[in-house]
Amino acid sequence: MKNPQVKIVGAGLLGTSLGLALARQSVTATLEDQSKANLRLAIEYGAGVESGPEPDLVIVCVPPDLTADVVIAQLQKHPHAIVTDVASVKSKIASEVSAALPTHSHRYIGSHPMAGREKGGPSAARADLFFARPWVITASEQSSAAAIDLIRDIALRLGALPVELSALEHDQAVALVSHLPQLVASLLANRLNLGSAEQLGLAGQGLRDTSRIAASDPQLWVQIVSQNSHAIAPLLTQLKADLDHLSESVANIDKSGSLAQIHGILQGGNSGVARIPGKHGGKGNNFQVVTVVIEDAPGALASLVTFIGEIGVNLEDLNLEHSPGAPIGLVELQVLPEVAERLSEQLTTNGWRLV
Amino acid sequence: MKNPQVKIVGAGLLGTSLGLALARQSVTATLEDQSKANLRLAIEYGAGVESGPEPDLVIVCVPPDLTADVVIAQLQKHPHAIVTDVASVKSKIASEVSAALPTHSHRYIGSHPMAGREKGGPSAARADLFFARPWVITASEQSSAAAIDLIRDIALRLGALPVELSALEHDQAVALVSHLPQLVASLLANRLNLGSAEQLGLAGQGLRDTSRIAASDPQLWVQIVSQNSHAIAPLLTQLKADLDHLSESVANIDKSGSLAQIHGILQGGNSGVARIPGKHGGKGNNFQVVTVVIEDAPGALASLVTFIGEIGVNLEDLNLEHSPGAPIGLVELQVLPEVAERLSEQLTTNGWRLV
Repeated sequence: MKNPQVKIVGAGLLGTSLGLALARQSVTATLEDQSKANLRLAIEYGAGVESGPEPDLVIVCVPPDLTADVVIAQLQKHPHAIVTDVASVKSKIASEVSAALPTHSHRYIGSHPMAGREKGGPSAARADLFFARPWVITASEQSSAAAIDLIRDIALRLGALPVELSALEHDQAVALVSHLPQLVASLLANRLNLGSAEQLGLAGQGLRDTSRIAASDPQLWVQIVSQNSHAIAPLLTQLKADLDHLSESVANIDKSGSLAQIHGILQGGNSGVARIPGKHGGKGNNFQVVTVVIEDAPGALASLVTFIGEIGVNLEDLNLEHSPGAPIGLVELQVLPEVAERLSEQLTTNGWRLV
Repeated sequence: MKNPQVKIVGAGLLGTSLGLALARQSVTATLEDQSKANLRLAIEYGAGVESGPEPDLVIVCVPPDLTADVVIAQLQKHPHAIVTDVASVKSKIASEVSAALPTHSHRYIGSHPMAGREKGGPSAARADLFFARPWVITASEQSSAAAIDLIRDIALRLGALPVELSALEHDQAVALVSHLPQLVASLLANRLNLGSAEQLGLAGQGLRDTSRIAASDPQLWVQIVSQNSHAIAPLLTQLKADLDHLSESVANIDKSGSLAQIHGILQGGNSGVARIPGKHGGKGNNFQVVTVVIEDAPGALASLVTFIGEIGVNLEDLNLEHSPGAPIGLVELQVLPEVAERLSEQLTTNGWRLV
């Protein structure tokens, strides 16, 4: 496929990252942003240029609330271009575009590169932001095959993993795997505001993991939740029903059936979490964990990981655990079950301290 | 302090780990377990011996439901020994012991070494299980100073970090930082049972982290929740109130005030999660993140971590991220803000691929 002429509207984190990633593929994008400062910064970083030929593809990278209007404006401005966007909710935008410009909607294809960072703006941009991440493409019935091919080609060239879904399928999926976890983490973290410093001092990795994403940007998330409220609402209703039962059982712990109710929710959690695919898109994580104690100093982790590489063991996952108040680190190594025993033995034999 | 004579009742994960840890301190514990197989295995591992002199200290390491009865029996059996336990809920046990044996309760001191593994039994035991973990000591008003000193000394010798709280303070703290996150993760993971494989295929690190502990043992957790229902119930009531408001706002997104309500919960989540202390018991995690792409092969991580050690940068945290379907790994390095820029520069200059 010959290099398309690409225009990016919105030089924030995603727009600038797209420009940088395209530049690596010898595609010089034209950039547009209402903020002159953002635009200049993105251009100085090498994400693109200010003007160029008429585009084949326009990628709209503005906040979710503005996306539909900007997509409509771009479809009108460039009557031969394919227009896509990167917003994390797709149905609402698609129906607004199709209602406003029914005869142009074959040129609009939604997409959602599932990549991001906790920081925003062009200065946080990275050319590799999309690398190895799913890139959902939400074509409508009107979308032309050539247009779908173009977006898929761009996604693949940026190292992303294209996944084709309808806008509705996409929105229901992200409601479950992204929006619900965000709201649950925020609800949990809200409870911490009433805890004392002493209580929070006993926090372990469980609380840290469960609440981590509660640090996300409220302004962005209000837009996401508002645009996908239709898909999120039934999930919250189901969650509420479970919480009502759980709360009732815990408050009346001596009542017959309470323990079975609590057990059922814990067991349902076991089966639910086992359904999340592991690394390499395979089935749920079946790795074995080997935990090693290291000094909390430069080089300590290096010699451990070097040793593991030397004995030919591939790490499937590695976590350096927090160790409040102690000058050591606990390294949690995840490996395939068939090498776990050998790894443990060789570590111990060579003087490593296993936990 | 001269080496105390220690008896451990219950040779499961915690009891056997205690025995192994004490053995490293030249303390040979006597072990007791209703299961002859467990007992024999623990002794073969070197966690202690089957009989010995009258104990100075008895540590009860049986499931939470049995703990009070076993503590009472041990106080009666050994009229001069200090008796402690390792159960994760303390008030209920303390009041049962004090009601059953009012004249002996000065010899009982609750404790909770906050350590564990996802696997149980003596074969999962590790001498370093308590290393760098908080060990809560819950003395009552009757507890003798000598008894408190003895438990604190044992905790310190095993590398744990002693924290003194009342049983009630402990139970309220763990309700917030341990039991509530467990139930929230289980509630979230329950929702995944209704998701399709396609939907779960879009799961990212956010869902993985938020739901990870939903894999915990339901049988153990029913006992914990049931014993601490008094402290957990009000937290669930508060959570329910927040969820009711959130659910109402999401279901009626166009109603005035809905967006402000959702924004408030997201913002409250920001402030709540910021209250969790970071590594080294310091204030919330203020590290900067540098993400590097590596090949998913033995030795790849080693050369990265070796390089970082060589340039003298200390890693505060490291996560090897999942990369579904791709033969690469993303390594998330957390470092102090003052070294982040130098690290990024030196990595880039030396051919590493930053994300």
